[in-house]
Amino acid sequence: MADGDHWVDDDNVALLTDQYQLTMLQAYWREEMFAPAVFSLFARRLPESRNYLLACGLDDALRFLENLRFTDDALSYLVGFDEFSDEFVGWLADFRFTGDVDAVPEGTPIFAEEPILEVEAPLPEGQLAETFLMNQVHLQTVLASKAARVVEAARGRPVVDFGLRRMHGADAGLRSARAYHVAGLAATSNVLAGRAYGVRVTGTMAHSYVQAHDEEMEAFRSFVDLYPDTILLVDTYDTLNGVRKVVELARELGDDFRVRGVRLDSGDLVELARGSRRILDEGGLEEVEIFASGGLDEYEVDRLLSAGAPIDGFGVGTGMGVSRDAPSLDLAYKLTSYAGRGRLKLSPGKKILPGRKQIFRIEEDGRAAGDVIDRADGGGGAGEHGRPLLRPVMRGGRRLPAGSEALEAARERARGEIDRLPPRLRGLEPAEPPYPVKVSRALREYQEDVRDEVEPAVSAG
Amino acid sequence: MADGDHWVDDDNVALLTDQYQLTMLQAYWREEMFAPAVFSLFARRLPESRNYLLACGLDDALRFLENLRFTDDALSYLVGFDEFSDEFVGWLADFRFTGDVDAVPEGTPIFAEEPILEVEAPLPEGQLAETFLMNQVHLQTVLASKAARVVEAARGRPVVDFGLRRMHGADAGLRSARAYHVAGLAATSNVLAGRAYGVRVTGTMAHSYVQAHDEEMEAFRSFVDLYPDTILLVDTYDTLNGVRKVVELARELGDDFRVRGVRLDSGDLVELARGSRRILDEGGLEEVEIFASGGLDEYEVDRLLSAGAPIDGFGVGTGMGVSRDAPSLDLAYKLTSYAGRGRLKLSPGKKILPGRKQIFRIEEDGRAAGDVIDRADGGGGAGEHGRPLLRPVMRGGRRLPAGSEALEAARERARGEIDRLPPRLRGLEPAEPPYPVKVSRALREYQEDVRDEVEPAVSAG
Repeated sequence: MADGDHWVDDDNVALLTDQYQLTMLQAYWREEMFAPAVFSLFARRLPESRNYLLACGLDDALRFLENLRFTDDALSYLVGFDEFSDEFVGWLADFRFTGDVDAVPEGTPIFAEEPILEVEAPLPEGQLAETFLMNQVHLQTVLASKAARVVEAARGRPVVDFGLRRMHGADAGLRSARAYHVAGLAATSNVLAGRAYGVRVTGTMAHSYVQAHDEEMEAFRSFVDLYPDTILLVDTYDTLNGVRKVVELARELGDDFRVRGVRLDSGDLVELARGSRRILDEGGLEEVEIFASGGLDEYEVDRLLSAGAPIDGFGVGTGMGVSRDAPSLDLAYKLTSYAGRGRLKLSPGKKILPGRKQIFRIEEDGRAAGDVIDRADGGGGAGEHGRPLLRPVMRGGRRLPAGSEALEAARERARGEIDRLPPRLRGLEPAEPPYPVKVSRALREYQEDVRDEVEPAVSAG
Repeated sequence: MADGDHWVDDDNVALLTDQYQLTMLQAYWREEMFAPAVFSLFARRLPESRNYLLACGLDDALRFLENLRFTDDALSYLVGFDEFSDEFVGWLADFRFTGDVDAVPEGTPIFAEEPILEVEAPLPEGQLAETFLMNQVHLQTVLASKAARVVEAARGRPVVDFGLRRMHGADAGLRSARAYHVAGLAATSNVLAGRAYGVRVTGTMAHSYVQAHDEEMEAFRSFVDLYPDTILLVDTYDTLNGVRKVVELARELGDDFRVRGVRLDSGDLVELARGSRRILDEGGLEEVEIFASGGLDEYEVDRLLSAGAPIDGFGVGTGMGVSRDAPSLDLAYKLTSYAGRGRLKLSPGKKILPGRKQIFRIEEDGRAAGDVIDRADGGGGAGEHGRPLLRPVMRGGRRLPAGSEALEAARERARGEIDRLPPRLRGLEPAEPPYPVKVSRALREYQEDVRDEVEPAVSAG
């Protein structure tokens, strides 16, 4: 392999694209198709087990657009393709993204067909943005949407991310931390995430530490000597026996005992949490908390708490880290306008709302009551009683202040916006009725008009 | 966020770890626990829909171990943690991986409980390797194992990867190309993958190209003028109408017509492929092939071919790219020996085979008949009639030749090894009976001995 390309970075990310983007770019360049195009990024439908999606990934999408360029190294690789002429590759050398982006801010709950972002740019620029924008918005929206459910299931108890080891690769490992922070997680085990995003990082011990000592008690003693307020992992050999050793350690240490909690990682967590609580309480350790981990997701967290398990916090890994029940979204990035004319597809099941759009969220008594997808100019009148969700975040290839907000702002937004959702949407089961999203009459009429324009193109030969 | 840390790279990947690894490292350092440790990386069980896993990810695992170091920047970040003493962080400055790795070569079918790799190193080194090794071996094994099923379902027809846009992040997007190449895919849409791994990159047109032209026929004409042997996407408006335009274009171009195929991306692909084939054949275009894409996975590919759809190749994206039916494996990295003593856990459902091990694959009449997991020294005698799968790939922190093999060698191995599996394992349904994997008597006895040694540690207080 070419050395230095074993990581994706600013210098090679322009090549992290589908070849057809470049094939089309050369065709657009040759045909001089540089007129403004509008592309919409949206989910065609929600997974069955999602009542809403939590928009995330905008920051990385905008950074990509700001930095997008082909380095000499990238260009010399492309010159080797039979398909690409030297003139075209020369044109790529000056390629920059100079367009506009409107987007729903990160941490906003969104629904099917609603544009998460819209790009308006010269056609080749909007086209080339597709692959990476989808990759990042997809990843981070998948993870934030899943994590919001786990946070909900935990009923106020802290949820900590343990998923790095089984997430899909290094980039997912890093970005997940932003998505999780937006969704309300308390902390992550991922050290680099702390460096990159300033999120809280936490961690105690693994089974290997206990195993490497000849006796469990010896492992506990040594670890607590170094980390007095740690959380001890008690299930390496026998959970309740492990908890009894914690009580014994408390007796040994007297006033110096400051262990914060125990972690259960296997077995019947309802029974073991009850048994552990009893042993701790009888040992005078009412302050020592119980943390649970091991194969958890929102359903399991909910089941544990519904069964009355006395658990004070959760470490959640793989199930959340790969979003096991819905690892992908039917996300699309579609041309909706070119050269001032609305565009659509007629492929079955893949309809497009043409042109630039706006989402208006209608609130009643402080609760989201329904959304209207309208034309961007608000011609449908929904703007009169709804709050617009899409806002300008980039103009002429540069971020606006609204496109540079701190991660903390997205987290606060998510908390507030989720609070204002109808309660049925926050449950783990499919909401009945689902959240109402309407297409405005003006947009529907525009869609009909565009269809009437396009249909001759279908039969024309 | 800290600038420059928005990508994972050689300079910060040491921090892409769980904090507890560092917490434990400081404890090992303080307790002077530097004796040799053995860690095994294995899948505890296979997903229901997998009859085997295709081992992948070793190359990135070994690169990580070779390059592992804490930069000044990483160290100065760690100094800021309350938990870590300046002395410990100073010790990290000289931290290198100096250990040994034995591994099953990439492209080998493996089964539950079989070590994919074993690390033998001073305890802190083996410990710190855990998170990243798991992350990469997990990702690439998940993707290779899924892709091998799609290749099988395609019955010799080429399968091309279209998944980059909905894979989990940039790193998955890049590494997937290695995993897919090992699994036998024909090509990928991912340009950077071509640069990084030399795999075949391919791509034609998207709906947006057709939409951006006022008439579909005009789009086809322009594209074919630039790319005479392209594949035309025909379903933007009406698939069969699109195919008729291809026939019309052939009449226009006469001998200059060299279009290689049409691509169907929506609708009832069985009916549309049949209809397209009929129109093409009646138009004298028997040589023009039909490619299908759109929501495919191994089950759908199998269904299409079983229904007799005349499809010549497949573009497969999201379902394979996130391994939708099995996006994660129950992969573990466990301490099996420390300071010359076997180690295990007794947690329910999380048993460990202690010590260093070897897998012997028993073949009969050129077919894999069963595996035996034995002690590494082959004490169980299985070595007499089985082929050892684990081989030395790193010694003293440096790769051996067997740890630096070309990607092509892994692809060839996969083809040969999958060919030698019992046919029932290559079907899409759960194999009945499953592939037999035995634990040798010598290893079982050793496990009992270690358990007898460990049990006092359980109750000891």
